[in-house]
Amino acid sequence: MAFLESEMTEPPFHRWLRPRIIDIRQDGVTICIPFRPELAHSENPGFFHGGILMSAADIAGHAAIAAAQLDKAPTVSLSIEFLRPAPVGELILNANVRKMGQTLSRADIEILAQEKLVAIARGSFARLKV
Amino acid sequence: MAFLESEMTEPPFHRWLRPRIIDIRQDGVTICIPFRPELAHSENPGFFHGGILMSAADIAGHAAIAAAQLDKAPTVSLSIEFLRPAPVGELILNANVRKMGQTLSRADIEILAQEKLVAIARGSFARLKV
Amino acid sequence: MAFLESEMTEPPFHRWLRPRIIDIRQDGVTICIPFRPELAHSENPGFFHGGILMSAADIAGHAAIAAAQLDKAPTVSLSIEFLRPAPVGELILNANVRKMGQTLSRADIEILAQEKLVAIARGSFARLKV
Amino acid sequence: MAFLESEMTEPPFHRWLRPRIIDIRQDGVTICIPFRPELAHSENPGFFHGGILMSAADIAGHAAIAAAQLDKAPTVSLSIEFLRPAPVGELILNANVRKMGQTLSRADIEILAQEKLVAIARGSFARLKV
Repeated sequence: MAFLESEMTEPPFHRWLRPRIIDIRQDGVTICIPFRPELAHSENPGFFHGGILMSAADIAGHAAIAAAQLDKAPTVSLSIEFLRPAPVGELILNANVRKMGQTLSRADIEILAQEKLVAIARGSFARLKV
Repeated sequence: MAFLESEMTEPPFHRWLRPRIIDIRQDGVTICIPFRPELAHSENPGFFHGGILMSAADIAGHAAIAAAQLDKAPTVSLSIEFLRPAPVGELILNANVRKMGQTLSRADIEILAQEKLVAIARGSFARLKV
Repeated sequence: MAFLESEMTEPPFHRWLRPRIIDIRQDGVTICIPFRPELAHSENPGFFHGGILMSAADIAGHAAIAAAQLDKAPTVSLSIEFLRPAPVGELILNANVRKMGQTLSRADIEILAQEKLVAIARGSFARLKV
Repeated sequence: MAFLESEMTEPPFHRWLRPRIIDIRQDGVTICIPFRPELAHSENPGFFHGGILMSAADIAGHAAIAAAQLDKAPTVSLSIEFLRPAPVGELILNANVRKMGQTLSRADIEILAQEKLVAIARGSFARLKV
């Protein structure tokens, strides 16, 4: 989906973080973030920084809503629960639409690292008015 | 405070983001994040990416709790409300302790850009057990 | 303020819970909930039930926004952090507007029991479209 | 499960609200709240009050965690997103454990009214220390 690709690659911050869409479904998307040392909170053992998990959750949730409404969907709010440290490797984010609304839509995001659920997030995203 | 300085500079992600402590109070801290192009969500007009605001809120809230308990305080949860776009320049974060607890502490974080309140966040941080 | 009074007393649930406005400010309101045994989570020692704190936070946050926009403001989301048990007596809620928006407004709510801060809440409230 | 039954019926507020367990699973519980006029936010059309939805979400999430750890689990935080008005009738709450932790556990709660998803909530619950 060309629209989603440009959403994913245009923001300067994304060009640094390098999120990649690996699946687009009816009601959601899956993105991944490959590890790089500067995404870490600690080394030996290496864990992702929470800020990276939140940034990735924001991007994934936005992508799920933007794909459904074929338009940008500015993030209104986001909350995250960190369940356990996120070991470095590839970060996988499954974002699923929970409600498409006239003004506000919601998505749930699950964050996995090394196949374990490391965090759960929930976001609200606005519909831009024409 | 040497402990807080090392908390601020050690994580590899911080070395990229470059948060800087500008005030330490009894009940809180103020940090700033100078703008760099790769922190942006958009250019012309330039706005910070929401992921940067969340990462900075996490760091500021953690710093407020860690300074109060003189120990690391892993982030358990964080929620943020984005109030308006955050124009580029210097990002200022005021983090204030709301509750120091035996196992869980809370901090509120206000995020300002160009002297306007652009987001409010709230986080829970754990006390490490010896 | 007659509008706020009717907001406070009309909903059937409010007639049971009996919230009472004790202050209206430029940017917020204070309400109180007198204790009755059926509001308790436990007796001996007596503590308010969390559901009562959340209900009261919803009502207080709504009142702050409704008073500012002179119109109903349906609750879109609410989050609460329980800081300590809430001893029975009078529950006091200070709700303050953080942002009045075109479609969405935010309020922070502090909940006190026996003069101690027992919980902090934050809500988003919609502006009804004409 | 006798423990859960007493959790459900002992608090004075529960005796008023009357939550009823209708299913206990490995990882969660389902409870229902039958409608009574004093649970309403409005009549004609009749909708449940948001405070009732939050109270019920709290009770359902607590029940899911308490059933899993066979011990009380005081609510630490709860957040809810209201997706649409909740028409009166029977309120159904499906609570599912997302993480059982040493000090903190999490549950997700879906709230249905007339078979439609009306709200989604997420809670953190503490493990009592012996």
